[in-house]
Order: sequence, then C-alpha cells, then structure tokens
Amino acid sequence: MHTPKYPTEINLLGHEEQSRRLERVYDGMRAAGIEAALVRNLANIYYLTGRVFRGYIYLQPSLDGPRYFVRQPNHLTGPGVHMIRKPEEIPAKLAEDGVGAGPQVALELGSVTFAECMRLACAMGMAGPGADLSPVMRAARAVKTPFEQKLIKASGVKHSLVYERIPHLYQEGMTDIEFQIEIERVSRLEGCLGIFRVGGDDMELFMGNVLTGENADTPSPYDFAMGGAGLDPSLPVGADGTVIRPGIPVMVDVNGDYTGYMTDMTRCFVSGEPLPEAVKANELSVAICDALAAMMKPGVAAADLYRKAAEMAEEAGMSASFMGHRSHAGFVGHGLGIEINEAPVIAPRSKDILQAGNVIAIEPKFVIPGLGAVGIENTYIVGEDAPAQAVTTAPTAIVLLD
Amino acid sequence: MHTPKYPTEINLLGHEEQSRRLERVYDGMRAAGIEAALVRNLANIYYLTGRVFRGYIYLQPSLDGPRYFVRQPNHLTGPGVHMIRKPEEIPAKLAEDGVGAGPQVALELGSVTFAECMRLACAMGMAGPGADLSPVMRAARAVKTPFEQKLIKASGVKHSLVYERIPHLYQEGMTDIEFQIEIERVSRLEGCLGIFRVGGDDMELFMGNVLTGENADTPSPYDFAMGGAGLDPSLPVGADGTVIRPGIPVMVDVNGDYTGYMTDMTRCFVSGEPLPEAVKANELSVAICDALAAMMKPGVAAADLYRKAAEMAEEAGMSASFMGHRSHAGFVGHGLGIEINEAPVIAPRSKDILQAGNVIAIEPKFVIPGLGAVGIENTYIVGEDAPAQAVTTAPTAIVLLD
Repeated sequence: MHTPKYPTEINLLGHEEQSRRLERVYDGMRAAGIEAALVRNLANIYYLTGRVFRGYIYLQPSLDGPRYFVRQPNHLTGPGVHMIRKPEEIPAKLAEDGVGAGPQVALELGSVTFAECMRLACAMGMAGPGADLSPVMRAARAVKTPFEQKLIKASGVKHSLVYERIPHLYQEGMTDIEFQIEIERVSRLEGCLGIFRVGGDDMELFMGNVLTGENADTPSPYDFAMGGAGLDPSLPVGADGTVIRPGIPVMVDVNGDYTGYMTDMTRCFVSGEPLPEAVKANELSVAICDALAAMMKPGVAAADLYRKAAEMAEEAGMSASFMGHRSHAGFVGHGLGIEINEAPVIAPRSKDILQAGNVIAIEPKFVIPGLGAVGIENTYIVGEDAPAQAVTTAPTAIVLLD
Repeated sequence: MHTPKYPTEINLLGHEEQSRRLERVYDGMRAAGIEAALVRNLANIYYLTGRVFRGYIYLQPSLDGPRYFVRQPNHLTGPGVHMIRKPEEIPAKLAEDGVGAGPQVALELGSVTFAECMRLACAMGMAGPGADLSPVMRAARAVKTPFEQKLIKASGVKHSLVYERIPHLYQEGMTDIEFQIEIERVSRLEGCLGIFRVGGDDMELFMGNVLTGENADTPSPYDFAMGGAGLDPSLPVGADGTVIRPGIPVMVDVNGDYTGYMTDMTRCFVSGEPLPEAVKANELSVAICDALAAMMKPGVAAADLYRKAAEMAEEAGMSASFMGHRSHAGFVGHGLGIEINEAPVIAPRSKDILQAGNVIAIEPKFVIPGLGAVGIENTYIVGEDAPAQAVTTAPTAIVLLD
C-alpha cells in the first residue's frame, strides 16, 4: 500500500550541511574537554539530522561520524543507524561498530530529566553523568548556518504575509480570542505548523498572544515579554475574552513556525483612530528596534543592546511602562530558531556577545495604563558587518482595522 | 487601571479540595518514606493549587500546610506564600516560618532536568537529590477527585458538541489539513484551550491528529497510538496534505482540553459510502471499547484489559492491523487528566491495577492497507462498581460527511 513519500535516510540535511553543524558541536566539545556525548533532546536531534526521532545520537569527534540509536520510527536507514528498544543496548552496538568503551560520555544535563540522565549514565557504564553537553549545543545552535537562515527567512515571508491579512479578519464587536482564532486559522492555512518549541518549562502558550486593553497588565507566570490572564487558570497567559474597543490597540504576537525554524513578530492593530499616546509608544518601539538593528554586529555585547533600549525608553519618559507595568520582563530580546528561547539573551546581565549568524527577536513593548500593550517585535539576522537584517517585514505602524 | 478579574489567592481550589489532593500526596510520601518534598513541575503545581505559577511548593506532611515559593507572577497572596527570585532563598524563608533544615527533600526526578535537580538539592543543603517524588505525584494524580471528574465531564460535553459539528465543516475536495484547520477553529470557538500537556518528551503534536488514507500507515517517532507523516520533517506526525477521497475514512482525534482537564476522543468520518471493511473495523473498535468499559472496575489489572482487546482483534482476524500496520503502538489505552499520558497505562506488561476515580482513554484503532485508519476512542471514568462511564458521547458509528 505505501509508496514512501518521505525519505527514510536518517540524515535529511545532506552531508555538507550536517558536517557544518557537527563541526560547530565538535569544536565546542573539544573546547569543553568532552570526548564523547549522547544527544536525546528532540530539538537537538532535529538540529543534527533535519528530522525528529526518538532515540540517541552518539557523538565522538574522533570517529568518522555520528552513531544513531533509534527507538522510533522503525524504518530509518543510513550509515551508523542502529535500531534499539532501550538505551542499555547502546554499548554493545557501539562495540559492534568498533567503538570501544572508554571515554566519559557527556549528556544534556540542562534538558534531560534527572532520572533519564542517571539511566543513560548507568547504561554507558558510568557512575553518574559527567560533563554537560547542553551549553555546547546551545552555543552551536546560536549561530545559524546559511541553510538555517534560509529556513528562517522562508518562515518570515509567510509570517509577514499572514500579518498583512490580519486587518481583513477583524469584525466589529469581536473579542480578543475570537480575533485570535481567525488569525490562527489563516496562519495554519498559510502553512504554520502550530507548535513552537520552547526549551525548559518556563513557558507554555498556544499559538500566540493577542492582548487588548487592561488584560495586557495582568501578570502571567511565564517568562514571556507580555502577560495576560488567559481563558482559564490552567493556562494563565494571553487573550481573556476582552471585547476589542475603538481606539484601544490590539497587540498580535502569533506563531511564526512555518519551516521548523520560526520567526517572532508583533504588530499592533486598532479599530478607529489610535490615541496619540499609542502612536507615540509604537513609534518609540520602532525607533528602539531600528537603533538596536544598527548596533547588532559581531562583537557587540547583548547587555549593551539592552542598555540602549532601556535608555531610549527612559529618555522618552516611558520607563514605568517599558516591558510591562505591574510586572516587568527582564529582557528586550532573545535568540530563536528551532526553539523560541535560544541564545543570545538581550538582558541587562547577559554575558552573550553577538556573532554573525545569530538570529535575534527584538521586542521593545510598553504596557500603558488605560491603553494596554503597544509595540512591535522583529526577528533579525546578524550579518558580518552591515546592520542586522529584519526577516519580519510587515508594516510597523499601528494598522487600522477598518 | 486594573480591576483584578482573577483572584490573587494562591490556592484556587479551596481548602477542602486542596486538602483532599494533599492527603493523597502525603499518603504516598509516607508510604515511600519521604519526609519532605519540593514540587516545581507546572502540571503538579496546577494539581496542588488549581493555578500555574513558576516556583516551588514545599510539602512536609508534619506541617500545617504547604509553603509556596513564587518566582512569577508577582501578585500572589495567601498563607505560606513567599516571593523569591531564586531557589537558594528557600531555606532562609522556611526558617522564618519556623521550619528548620533537617529532612531530606524529595524532588521530581522524572520531570525536572538533571541540572535543575542538582541546583535544588544544593539549595536545600543536600549533596544530591535523594528520593524521587515523581511516582508519588503520578499515583496521586491517577485517581481523580469528584471535582476533577467534574472538570473532565465538562470538557467531555464540549468536546462531544464539537464532534457533532464536524460533518458540517467538510467541503468536497478538502485535504486532511484543511479539514483539520476548520475543526481546530470550531474547537477553539467552543472554548478549547489548545494546548494539551504531555509528561516527558516522547510526544509533540499541535491540537490533534487527522488522518486519511495511506498517510495513516506512515510511522511517526512519537509515542502516540497513530502516526502520519505530518507537514514537515520537524513535526513528523498527522495530516500531510492528502486529499480526502470518497469511501476512504478520515480519523479525527483532536484536543479535548476545555477546562485544564482534558478528554480524548476519536471518531471516523467518510465522504460517500464507507467500505464494508471500514464499517466492520469500526464496529470491532466500538465492541472492544464496550467490552473494556464493562471490565473497567477497581481491582482489574490494566494488562488484562489490553489482553482482552488484543484477543478480540485476533478473533476477528485483525491482529495485523491492530494499533497500526507498519508500526504498532504498544498500548490500547492510557490515563489522562491534566496531562495526556497519566497512569494507568493499558499495555501488555503494565503493572497498574485499576482504582475508582481513574480516568482512562481507550483507543482500539486499526490501520488497514488500502483504507487507512479506522476506530474510535472514548474517555471513561472508572466507578466504584458499575461499568466505567464514557464522558465522550458523540455517536460511535462512522459519520457520513455529506
């Protein structure tokens, strides 16, 4: 019955692209004194192969390539692929391949549970986990290859197209969630995959955040720039059923995952004339984005970018509403790609230094009492020398809904 | 500006309901010899308080109640609430409260990362994590209180309503994903929260799975009953853009999270007359559900339920397509509630024994070469004595789309 529509080859990246990524990871391993590592985080597996499988990738820079230990799906092929049912089978399979026991094996201590790390360490013949691979993977993934940048740009094109359709989805009397649902639908029809991957458990969200009015000032438990009460205490973030009112901006920040690599974009919309305060805050947000884009070059400190944004807010007398009002987010931007919270982090005490190939969302937003949330967000690719290039290209001014 | 629409009291469950849940957790802790524990998993925090916050709950059965250490949001109140910036502040705050250091503190080793467990252990003055709280929480959450059952029933009512609207969403020539997007929209308009929580990282999915034709036979990496290629290698599960054809069933298994507690339901739909094979397989699925529902009483072994289902498939000559064809799922049902993969697990080697208050989804599904996926899924509440009660009540026969 089945004519395979999808390749079974484990490496969907091609040799050259995979080698480029592996070289970054191997460099990091060498710098950290890590001889071998076992990868099991799904986002990292996707990074290293261009596909998702349940299992493990054994990395040892001194070998001729990775070894893949696949639990599921059951049809993958290619050099170094071993089907297993449990990780305890790994050492024997490695031995078949001529890879002897010996080196300590680093694990992803920052993304794999304690119980699973102990099991893997034990399976590999170690008393407990040794070195941490998480910072190595995070650093490798922070610098996107040209192919990754292409996927991000492709998401940006579709994401921007959807945003240009948003004004046509509005009908008078809609609530925030009704408006959001129509945006979700159009996004999905345009090819949005829906999920956005998040590293760690500091964020939960469905498809995006649409905020209007005082709901924007309800603090949320999550590590997002903006809050909102949400529809239910089980997911306290975002739209809460507030009716969209004339003159009150609606901030739209919805999912840009169209290719496995996502863009992050926010724009504001308003029914009727926007109030001058909203226009002014939005212009300040755009000005901060432009100023940071001009600064974002290799060697620049992430903390300096944050400082610049905070200074511009202060000069405009907008500090009290910068990145929130009752609750303030501690950053103005973040790396993104496969996950929404990658390196670098644009925050006051960030130690990150920008590199060419970083992809960074900048989101200077304001929560103004009586008005709600105002501001934009763009995703930028950091170049070699020129100012960073925005891949989210919808018009930045507050867009009229009617 | 802000008239608080949502209560700031940390415990949204009320004293009685929270005590009922705490007593279950404390019983488990005592049985496991655990004197004290720190909870940080968001699903467990929601279970214990009825709300989500980022932080920690300190449990010690000998105290007069939990202590809450909240990082975010910044406006929570109530007895035992302490605002903190980092977990290292916990011991001093406990001491303020008259709780001395001393007992070993169990952590959720099965859901918290290795790095975070080490940090928490160190913050609590321990050399490393001691006992594992994860099995205790899993066991406590497996038996739903009457209030939890009420939330599950409420989700079931809305979920069933949405399924009755599905036939009206179909238009000739639609692809699986176009059909799914209209179902997503109607679900969201009916109040579906969108996310469904999953424990661990063995599953990723957006909003549900709609499968038609041979795509149902594409193995996926995830631990779901059914597969599908998906739209992109970054999320290889579910609809892949196949056009829905006359006579070929469409299996719809979409998100039932309307209240923070979810139901799981699957039904099949067909444009034109269903083929007799499809009708027969669907009837077998319904018969297995009915047989298992009649068996599901306290004291029954989960493994016996699986065995019964597999026997009925075998007697009908359907073993080769039971729970998949090119790839077979290793279970026929699963507990659910706050997360989609709770205890008990209805699998051949499951050690789980049913208890009154278990909520279990039963999903005997078939993947038939040339036809695709056929079968239903219902969510049941296990009672004291009577057969289990289905809370997903849409008609079980294959529904005609036109």
